[in-house]
Amino acid sequence: MSDSSAAAGVVGILGGMGPLATIDFMHKMLLATPAATDQEHVPVVVSSIPQVPDRNQAFRGDGESPLAALVASGRRLAGAGAQMVVMPCNTAHLWFDELQQALELPMLHLVDAALHDAVALAGPSARIGLLATDASLASGLYLNRRPQGAPAVQWLLPTAREMLDWVMPGIAAVKAGDLPGGADRLLAAALALKQRGASALVLGCTEIPLVLDAANAPLPVIDATAALAQRAVAWSLGQRRQAA
Amino acid sequence: MSDSSAAAGVVGILGGMGPLATIDFMHKMLLATPAATDQEHVPVVVSSIPQVPDRNQAFRGDGESPLAALVASGRRLAGAGAQMVVMPCNTAHLWFDELQQALELPMLHLVDAALHDAVALAGPSARIGLLATDASLASGLYLNRRPQGAPAVQWLLPTAREMLDWVMPGIAAVKAGDLPGGADRLLAAALALKQRGASALVLGCTEIPLVLDAANAPLPVIDATAALAQRAVAWSLGQRRQAA
Repeated sequence: MSDSSAAAGVVGILGGMGPLATIDFMHKMLLATPAATDQEHVPVVVSSIPQVPDRNQAFRGDGESPLAALVASGRRLAGAGAQMVVMPCNTAHLWFDELQQALELPMLHLVDAALHDAVALAGPSARIGLLATDASLASGLYLNRRPQGAPAVQWLLPTAREMLDWVMPGIAAVKAGDLPGGADRLLAAALALKQRGASALVLGCTEIPLVLDAANAPLPVIDATAALAQRAVAWSLGQRRQAA
Repeated sequence: MSDSSAAAGVVGILGGMGPLATIDFMHKMLLATPAATDQEHVPVVVSSIPQVPDRNQAFRGDGESPLAALVASGRRLAGAGAQMVVMPCNTAHLWFDELQQALELPMLHLVDAALHDAVALAGPSARIGLLATDASLASGLYLNRRPQGAPAVQWLLPTAREMLDWVMPGIAAVKAGDLPGGADRLLAAALALKQRGASALVLGCTEIPLVLDAANAPLPVIDATAALAQRAVAWSLGQRRQAA
């Protein structure tokens, strides 16, 4: 009994942060794939183990590091035959380099994908708003990153008050399943950035596009989840073409 | 560096048939879980390798058996540490026994979950409509199965014409991403069953609840995907309680 199903280009999704964002990422991979039958879709394996210590607490020094749990979850993907790993969680990218070193598998970086799409949409001289977690902002995850060949981005950030009242409670509401409550708060934060002069908005936490998107946002958005999903599909289709 | 994330109750989802149905199943697991934070959700690993030979073609003798691909996909789940396997595809359950034997992991049977819910909703003397693939109908997957303690179900099936014009093209449309086209055809088939006296309707193919549900169906529905998702969550929570 042999398995003739092609095994090239298997994408590993290190998910569970949160589990709904993982599903959203998988859905955006489907939307980015030209396919009329099941068999034309991209092969993926997923480790959605939500028992990863809170990334924001760890960055503040209030809780244990998520690295061991991320490595363990990534090793599940290796055990399932993943050939490349993506991680649909912005804040977890604070541990990207250590994780990649431990896993010894290629990985695509979510922030690089989002930055390329942001500059392509808004142009290099535009002021771009950024909605992300406290840890993603304070660590410089977006602010200090500059992919090769990309111009510097002029960022516009929420105020400390807006983070406290709207962004962090909005993300927590989405994680708790209160999507309308999350939408209200994140929409308020998006409006404030627009009023201060943002011409586009990066949704830099995978919970945010679950409630804020091109249909209801008050300015053009760059969805970091979709940006990474498109790169993951392109990677897999490229591997499958090479293997065919 | 140790991983303190709990590893009890890891559900393995053997998916990809089709990939959108896998996402729907994962979403229904989330909806069935009482959780306010990421960490309270159930740990899952997923193998969504859509390159499984077509299950209906194989049953007709027109194509190779999907068994080898199902076993290979199931072994990816074992490699990722799954402790129990569920398969959100009705037709693939034609190979359930052989698959379970090859994997040596416990599995929950989708049809048993749906049959229990059908009798609970409609009562044992009701006539229950069944929308499922040609292979699921012709093989007796639903018609001949009777979980322990459950009464026999009085089934009402689509005609051969309705299968040809509505049910199979409706399922194919959903797999190709044409959700409105799929909804129109499957709704027509549901209406015909209602007119012939069905008092409830089993959605016995995981593509069907993607376009037909309690909100738009002309009679009460039993969603086999949701039935299995609820059992998978209950199994995992039970395992996690035992391990705690």
